[in-house]
Amino acid sequence: KSLGVELHCRCIQTESRPIGRHIEKVELIPANSHCEETEIIATLKRTGQEVCLDPEAPWVKKVIERIMSNELERN
Amino acid sequence: KSLGVELHCRCIQTESRPIGRHIEKVELIPANSHCEETEIIATLKRTGQEVCLDPEAPWVKKVIERIMSNELERN
Repeated sequence: KSLGVELHCRCIQTESRPIGRHIEKVELIPANSHCEETEIIATLKRTGQEVCLDPEAPWVKKVIERIMSNELERN
Repeated sequence: KSLGVELHCRCIQTESRPIGRHIEKVELIPANSHCEETEIIATLKRTGQEVCLDPEAPWVKKVIERIMSNELERN
């Protein structure tokens, strides 16, 4: 194993509560040879905490759509 | 100005060529007090180069949709 290479999925569990308004930024990691599912990792405002989101959850899809259309609520 | 705080938009220009297949991951940064537009920063495979994408470009929207539906082509 090489150092610094992710050899597995990064998310163990995903956040079920709709935390869209607390999101500072979102990282989308497409499926790859180390993880067969897309992973979404949100960084929260204030705390900087990283939280995994479920790509299939309707509220998560909406959050992404709203970021893409420059409409995420600013709180 | 505090150290470590982004006080302006990070993207100066965006990539116009459709580079979806070269994307390792994508960071979505919603509009905030330091930047009034959503910013999308893609990290490329192999080189690790960071490239800004235009949230309004149709090919970019498609790339995001395909990542969300776990369908990004793996090359």
